[in-house]
Amino acid sequence: MAGVQPRAPQGFRDYLPETMIPKDGMLRRIAEVFERFGFSPIMTPAVEYAEILRGKCGEEGDHLMYNFLTRGGKEVCLRYDLTVPLARVIAQYREIVLPFRRYQIAPVWRAERPQRGRFREFLQCDADIVGPIGLLADSECIQVGCAVLDALGIDGYSLRVNNRKLLSGILEAAGVRGAVREVAALRVIDKMSKVDRDEVLGMMEREVGLAGQAAEDLLGVIGAGGPPEEVLRTVEDRIPSDSAGRAGVEEICEVFRMLEAAGVAEKVHLDLGIARGLDYYTGTVYEGTLDRLPGVGSILAGGRYDSLIGVFRGEEIPGVGISVGVDRLFAALVELGLVESRSTTAGVLITCFDRERTQDSLRLAGDLRHSGINCEVFPGLEKLSKQFRYADRKGIRWVVVVGPDEVSRGEVKVKDLRDGSERSVSPVDLAGVIASGAAG
Amino acid sequence: MAGVQPRAPQGFRDYLPETMIPKDGMLRRIAEVFERFGFSPIMTPAVEYAEILRGKCGEEGDHLMYNFLTRGGKEVCLRYDLTVPLARVIAQYREIVLPFRRYQIAPVWRAERPQRGRFREFLQCDADIVGPIGLLADSECIQVGCAVLDALGIDGYSLRVNNRKLLSGILEAAGVRGAVREVAALRVIDKMSKVDRDEVLGMMEREVGLAGQAAEDLLGVIGAGGPPEEVLRTVEDRIPSDSAGRAGVEEICEVFRMLEAAGVAEKVHLDLGIARGLDYYTGTVYEGTLDRLPGVGSILAGGRYDSLIGVFRGEEIPGVGISVGVDRLFAALVELGLVESRSTTAGVLITCFDRERTQDSLRLAGDLRHSGINCEVFPGLEKLSKQFRYADRKGIRWVVVVGPDEVSRGEVKVKDLRDGSERSVSPVDLAGVIASGAAG
Repeated sequence: MAGVQPRAPQGFRDYLPETMIPKDGMLRRIAEVFERFGFSPIMTPAVEYAEILRGKCGEEGDHLMYNFLTRGGKEVCLRYDLTVPLARVIAQYREIVLPFRRYQIAPVWRAERPQRGRFREFLQCDADIVGPIGLLADSECIQVGCAVLDALGIDGYSLRVNNRKLLSGILEAAGVRGAVREVAALRVIDKMSKVDRDEVLGMMEREVGLAGQAAEDLLGVIGAGGPPEEVLRTVEDRIPSDSAGRAGVEEICEVFRMLEAAGVAEKVHLDLGIARGLDYYTGTVYEGTLDRLPGVGSILAGGRYDSLIGVFRGEEIPGVGISVGVDRLFAALVELGLVESRSTTAGVLITCFDRERTQDSLRLAGDLRHSGINCEVFPGLEKLSKQFRYADRKGIRWVVVVGPDEVSRGEVKVKDLRDGSERSVSPVDLAGVIASGAAG
Repeated sequence: MAGVQPRAPQGFRDYLPETMIPKDGMLRRIAEVFERFGFSPIMTPAVEYAEILRGKCGEEGDHLMYNFLTRGGKEVCLRYDLTVPLARVIAQYREIVLPFRRYQIAPVWRAERPQRGRFREFLQCDADIVGPIGLLADSECIQVGCAVLDALGIDGYSLRVNNRKLLSGILEAAGVRGAVREVAALRVIDKMSKVDRDEVLGMMEREVGLAGQAAEDLLGVIGAGGPPEEVLRTVEDRIPSDSAGRAGVEEICEVFRMLEAAGVAEKVHLDLGIARGLDYYTGTVYEGTLDRLPGVGSILAGGRYDSLIGVFRGEEIPGVGISVGVDRLFAALVELGLVESRSTTAGVLITCFDRERTQDSLRLAGDLRHSGINCEVFPGLEKLSKQFRYADRKGIRWVVVVGPDEVSRGEVKVKDLRDGSERSVSPVDLAGVIASGAAG
């Protein structure tokens, strides 16, 4: 194997314990929040038949799918997202009771070009409610977003909410009509928070065909801040009474009323500049950002999509969801100092003094583990100094020595590598000493 | 999409909440046990470069790998197991402190022929200790096996332990010499518990070239039961003193001494008939079976392999591990009545009476969730009877009604669908009523 270079494929990542331990902890807390809101886990295969995925994730999606043949000659693709598989599941298992709340935390794969610095495998973390659902579902997904960030100990965050129908109404009123121009306009609006006003105006002219006062007016409306009622009052006047935009106004008012009742109103803001790139959103859309790290961009997002879930059943089945951007969110938690990197789950190393005393070490480990303490026994007979060095390099805090002197006195020695302190205790007291020390 | 049949690819499975909720619970408990023994999680990509995987999983492995080209034209394979990726990680990240205890619970893929009724995607659940390790590591992996089954509430199980060196010594003494004949003999021994004695003798003659009294003697030795010391005393006499088999005897004695000290000796038995099919084991091997479901076969297994982990570093790095067969184990738990199938994580449905009262429902849901109770609010304004029916079909036990009468009296109504009982309580008492009812 001398010629083989050991490395993960380009665009793919390994997670060693230093990252995986806190990341696992984050994912577990997110799953707990999903379950608190009654979402249930499902698992679907890594691959789907190509005919299921093709044409559902836009032109770029088709282009970025990894595909291959199974034995048997059927073409399959590695899943591109978790939403199309959900649509397939809803069509395949008619026994699923709707409305259905499911969550799934699983990798997806995209054949990105290496030079783009994007990853070809990343975790998606989605919770969705599908079936005949009212706006309460939209409100609950937004609440889930708040609850996830609360559960992770983040205090400063904001969920910015908008509505696609409302946005269409505003665009229509501004003279942007037709699907192609509307999509182009949404794409420009999506960039408003990232580029300066002149650039936005330039794009509006080039890509949407909207210039001068009309463009200025549109940006003014979309950029207006303030309490939802106030913003909506201004907007409402501009939208023709027969426009679908009026339904958007009503929807967003209703959603905000519910968010108020749910007690999360102060974390949630109306932002007419939220467009969300994905074509499939049809109503509520929202994004969450962190106050202290605005540059990170949105760390969760979601919205309502009324046409995708029913695609394989040939009927319209509404859906609304939240997708947590776990890679970005984890990076943010690290930057905010909210996660502790540890290279091992073990808090205690029990050393082995010699062959005979090893049996005492094993007995002691059994006792600690029964007390719920994670510990490892050094798996060999090395010099004690080497065993201590191992604990130190590994970041294990407590080292226990069961030597002949200690055994003859009915004691064990325990050293706290954090402050170097050392004491002899009775084996039955060891778990208590470690638990209280860890708490202190 | 009328022409597209919604189904998972052949040989791949979906897990709906009924299965996924208890399976997730099982996996979490297993991960807890791994961490109790100081194993830390890692994550590696679904794919590896073909040059990494090829030739490491035997001829069959090479044949069963799914492979495709990444953009950029490099050939990759979906991982076949979790052990070769671990070997790659150990070679790539020299900063990892050895001995290294890692666990990984993740899918692997094998291009099985459809007709074999095997799955092409399944979860592997492995914990391994790699590095310069003594027999204590072997003992700890066997202990992990016991602790996993204990944690899952299984009381009757047995871990049958053997040693490859010892088995080689026995075969050598019986006149089976050379790697080809030895591997053939191991394969026959592996089948001893599945087919009858005459068939085993037939295979011994045909495939190993061992017949008559020599074959009878060999089966007699291998089939001998009893306490380890007793069995080993008989065996030891047969093994030449210069044979590697003697080292096997010493190893297994040492491992049993440690298992005794660790307090698991009564669950562990010496069984000279345990061979383990995999070529790469070099010392301790073991399998776990359930007393009440012997037909299920081994539900966990593992052993020591001293040559695989170092393959990319060009040096010998010992390893010893345990692999839990989570699919089999889960099926066994279901059969033993040790898991409860639930189709939702929510224990409570809060109904919505009308638009106005929905706000009260949302407030109440917030309170319950803060009390740690999983609940959902019905996401629409349907007739109450329909909302009740939804809870019933979904298997949600408690249904809460927040109607105008209740609200005017400062109460809510809660119905236990398990026994049909119903009562009115103050909203502040609701969480307590549900928690105590769920406990009763």
